[in-house]
Amino acid sequence: MGSKRPDRREFLKGGAALAGGFTLGAVAPAIAQTPAGQTPAHGEFIKGSKELIAYGERSRFVTSVRIPHGGRPSPDAFGLVFHVATPLQDSVGVITPSSLHYVATTRGSFIPDIDPREHRLLIHGMVDRPLTFTMEDLKRLPSVTRLHFIECAGNRSTPKAKNVQETHGMTSCAEWTGVLLSTLLKECGVKGGASWFVAEGAEEVKGASSMPLAKALDDVIVAYGMNGEPVRPQQGFPLRLLVPGFEGIFSTKYLRRIKLVDQYYMNYNDYGHLRQDAKETALGYQVGPKSVITFPSAGQQLPGKGFYEISGLAWSGGGVIRRVEVSTDGGRRWNDAEIRGTVARMAHTRFAYQWNWDGKETELQSRCFDELGQVQPSRAQVAKFFNVPLGEVPGLDNTIQPWRIASDGSVKNGLA
Amino acid sequence: MGSKRPDRREFLKGGAALAGGFTLGAVAPAIAQTPAGQTPAHGEFIKGSKELIAYGERSRFVTSVRIPHGGRPSPDAFGLVFHVATPLQDSVGVITPSSLHYVATTRGSFIPDIDPREHRLLIHGMVDRPLTFTMEDLKRLPSVTRLHFIECAGNRSTPKAKNVQETHGMTSCAEWTGVLLSTLLKECGVKGGASWFVAEGAEEVKGASSMPLAKALDDVIVAYGMNGEPVRPQQGFPLRLLVPGFEGIFSTKYLRRIKLVDQYYMNYNDYGHLRQDAKETALGYQVGPKSVITFPSAGQQLPGKGFYEISGLAWSGGGVIRRVEVSTDGGRRWNDAEIRGTVARMAHTRFAYQWNWDGKETELQSRCFDELGQVQPSRAQVAKFFNVPLGEVPGLDNTIQPWRIASDGSVKNGLA
Repeated sequence: MGSKRPDRREFLKGGAALAGGFTLGAVAPAIAQTPAGQTPAHGEFIKGSKELIAYGERSRFVTSVRIPHGGRPSPDAFGLVFHVATPLQDSVGVITPSSLHYVATTRGSFIPDIDPREHRLLIHGMVDRPLTFTMEDLKRLPSVTRLHFIECAGNRSTPKAKNVQETHGMTSCAEWTGVLLSTLLKECGVKGGASWFVAEGAEEVKGASSMPLAKALDDVIVAYGMNGEPVRPQQGFPLRLLVPGFEGIFSTKYLRRIKLVDQYYMNYNDYGHLRQDAKETALGYQVGPKSVITFPSAGQQLPGKGFYEISGLAWSGGGVIRRVEVSTDGGRRWNDAEIRGTVARMAHTRFAYQWNWDGKETELQSRCFDELGQVQPSRAQVAKFFNVPLGEVPGLDNTIQPWRIASDGSVKNGLA
Repeated sequence: MGSKRPDRREFLKGGAALAGGFTLGAVAPAIAQTPAGQTPAHGEFIKGSKELIAYGERSRFVTSVRIPHGGRPSPDAFGLVFHVATPLQDSVGVITPSSLHYVATTRGSFIPDIDPREHRLLIHGMVDRPLTFTMEDLKRLPSVTRLHFIECAGNRSTPKAKNVQETHGMTSCAEWTGVLLSTLLKECGVKGGASWFVAEGAEEVKGASSMPLAKALDDVIVAYGMNGEPVRPQQGFPLRLLVPGFEGIFSTKYLRRIKLVDQYYMNYNDYGHLRQDAKETALGYQVGPKSVITFPSAGQQLPGKGFYEISGLAWSGGGVIRRVEVSTDGGRRWNDAEIRGTVARMAHTRFAYQWNWDGKETELQSRCFDELGQVQPSRAQVAKFFNVPLGEVPGLDNTIQPWRIASDGSVKNGLA
């Protein structure tokens, strides 16, 4: 840890110094009574119903939900746009619960209702043996289990965004289980000259741009498992192509076909990726290094000065997150954050920084560094690079997100 | 990897050799049509309802559920026993979905319906400053995020058990987030002479035996987060004491009080742990090294000879799983399994072994080794140690689980 980071012991050794003093036990009730004032009677318990035996539910006091992204209705009047964002402001740890994983489709909000017994994956094109796999076939094959984030190319902050769900909620992280695409391609036999592949899903929006074959032979997963159970319908049940580190649209849902080809082919979703040459196109898919503080973040309220653990997430299409830094003074000084929980390539990485707030107005920022040596840029750096005003930073925006802390403890988007 | 393990390339290099030959693409429909035979119309899609925007659900084709443990009704006629087991036969990866996490209470099946704003944790007894923490207090403090299994002391196989859910389903694994108990104890200040602690939850069954203070100062977590969201009600919402590697009953749900004491105190749940001296008692809580094959396991059916990836879980209260071995011939030869996904201390560890079944009757077994050098024992070894018949192996049974494969591909409990 960096020398600038205040030593945790400084906060702890005095005792009762962390959050400005907790309630003394002698004053509080000896036993916390729930829900209020008395030992609860049976009427204040949840009965162990048949439904709760089969498949448990969350507390009625937990109301964190996904919201439509970017203020657009989901689904829209044509049933086409369905974009809902993860409530990152409530997130803890690394895993996004499957029920809260972000969802994005642009040409069909209806979720295919697929019977997995009928589902097939065909691999064809420039292969020696075109093969069709049932779900049972796939589950017999050598598997991998890996943590990976997915992020929508439209995940970016705007001055109007009121909270971190609006600014950054179009990314989530899950434990994915499936077969490496490279394993399947070995079975099919890749023909000389094959250099790209296209993937197609069983929804109206059938696939994204061509992807380089090198990626298929590296770390692409044909995933049937997500957070310990089958992939959820909104995530592509029964089968999703997981393309680690690439823009989310490449992680094709309801995967039913992969074709190996010898050149870059246009496909249904080639918006925003029109570049001059194929190599540049392939490289353009990779998500840059990005981080955001989830607590405290815009819309939250600090109860007063004192100790807080600042918490956030960092991720990069360029591999593992090597370091995260936090600034509590608007970017003048940067301090090493601590890493929490599992660290994995192309996965959300939880960071934390111990902060003693003096009660004065300030601005919090975070930035991350990945294994390629890439550094998350400031908004000013990107604007300079593209020679545009600060408000017009284009494309997949991975710039530093500032949160402004007012002296009353309220938190606002620093871009506003 | 061990030299006895068949090389994966042996299976792959011939092509189409893995599962006895997949369907040739030319024969199958070029695009898998779902649900049957035609490109799906809108009526065959799930509509993006308001509920599905807020909080997603699983597919109607996924019917994996928890079941009452050990054939007892849950809850029983008195509303007291509530034991439901995780469907390990359907598990993939490391994480157990929170909705499928096993649940065990012995003196009250009613789940406390706690408003987290009213909940308090009191730490008192042999401390300098007894303190009371609100949920908001706890969330401001330095946090940890760790993968940990919990296992009920009653999790053991019997000859009558028909599947792995019945034999081993009283264990689950989640990503837990919270504050180390040691952090809270530093705030309170531990008095000289304190050597044990007791924990109390807000349910009718209020806590377990005393635990050694050394454990509190090591890795015990006061957990508010589970798999990225608040701890579920059946797991102790809003606060659970997570005691890694100890029998599940110590991981006190609805945690509201911790008391530091200077001797071993009896508590509500001291059944089965009555030993002569305190040190022996403390050591007796730790779960031994254990593993089980989840696929193929009893009740499942292999469609025929050929390639299968055998998959299973290993765990130990003694720390990290160092190695797992699989036998495909009833325990005569042992082969190194591969480890899949995240490996963490006192967490489920997913293992896999690549097997080419010749179609003949045989027996599958697994055993694991932990960082303390402990080896999962055979049933015969344990019976000999206790000098009892094989059918009467006592206590927390961590013996090797055999699955018998018949020549028709059916799988049965090898203890039957």
